[in-house]
Amino acid sequence: MRRLSHYLRALESFTDAPGGTVSSEELASRGSTTAAQVRKDLSHFGSFGKRGLGYNVAELRDRLRSILGVDRVWSVALVGAGRIGRALFEYPDFRARGYHCVAILDVDPEKVGAAWGDTEIRPISELEDVIRSLSVDLVVLAVPGSAAQDIADRAVECGVRGLLNFAPVQLRVPSDVPVEDVNLVMELEALSFQITQG
Amino acid sequence: MRRLSHYLRALESFTDAPGGTVSSEELASRGSTTAAQVRKDLSHFGSFGKRGLGYNVAELRDRLRSILGVDRVWSVALVGAGRIGRALFEYPDFRARGYHCVAILDVDPEKVGAAWGDTEIRPISELEDVIRSLSVDLVVLAVPGSAAQDIADRAVECGVRGLLNFAPVQLRVPSDVPVEDVNLVMELEALSFQITQG
Repeated sequence: MRRLSHYLRALESFTDAPGGTVSSEELASRGSTTAAQVRKDLSHFGSFGKRGLGYNVAELRDRLRSILGVDRVWSVALVGAGRIGRALFEYPDFRARGYHCVAILDVDPEKVGAAWGDTEIRPISELEDVIRSLSVDLVVLAVPGSAAQDIADRAVECGVRGLLNFAPVQLRVPSDVPVEDVNLVMELEALSFQITQG
Repeated sequence: MRRLSHYLRALESFTDAPGGTVSSEELASRGSTTAAQVRKDLSHFGSFGKRGLGYNVAELRDRLRSILGVDRVWSVALVGAGRIGRALFEYPDFRARGYHCVAILDVDPEKVGAAWGDTEIRPISELEDVIRSLSVDLVVLAVPGSAAQDIADRAVECGVRGLLNFAPVQLRVPSDVPVEDVNLVMELEALSFQITQG
């Protein structure tokens, strides 16, 4: 699936010549993989491209956007108005990709009531209200590990469809609610592991 | 390898009773995996534990720290003094795990000369000096995609041993220099992909 994201980025970087095509070799070089892997990955989602002619850039790009779900707007609530939350909130690519942060919540009374841009920071007690009234699809958990499971439970109970978790804990959620974990210490551990073992 | 990080976190959370043991089932439940997988993962690194008695907590914890390379101090240089850089810099777990940020560099003359805590922000032109004089092991790239490859090349040339890359590009580096990519938009795409396809 990560490779699909890379292919989409590659396709978006190509000039938008009408009828332009791209070979699986070109996509492979951008995605750090092989042409055979590109063809295999894309074949899972139907028939694209013609043998010897390559893929139509515009058509494949639109199809990948649809497969990745980035051809629509996703409503995101950010829980935790700390530095990681702020970095995410200001990241220009999120909005460009259709991820709109519609609410920010925090437990700290000193932060509640302040605003980031036009978005007011609301108390965590309003989580359920916020999710329901703003039809939140995704919740970003940028909170300490001790708070994460409780907030995840409340969010899932309200029908949130996925969680991006920065807290250093393994969340327990129903299997139909995907969770992506971002653990920055583990990323560094992955490096030191490879260096130590390498 | 990610599972090893989870096992280590689980072991660290157990009370430090002398001679305390833990079963592969207990470790499995913390790592969202199976007891058989735990035994298989750990068997790659030698013989731990006794059948029917479980693993000695303190011994396995120390061994995992050594395998993951977190029983030593790693010198880290942060390139890019923006919000993501700041969030990383202030993350308490990094230092606790032995990742010491010894230098911060930025291209912006307005930022150069300022300090975060005791660490002065230095101009990117000093990258080579900094890496060599401070024996930097790891470089964190919190820079725009357009700048990342050039900085990676310079860092690798100076003998840096690994890169943590937040820039949305695939870096080309020698195969003996591990790179871990953190792409936050791709994390959200992974969620919307699973929701859309699920």
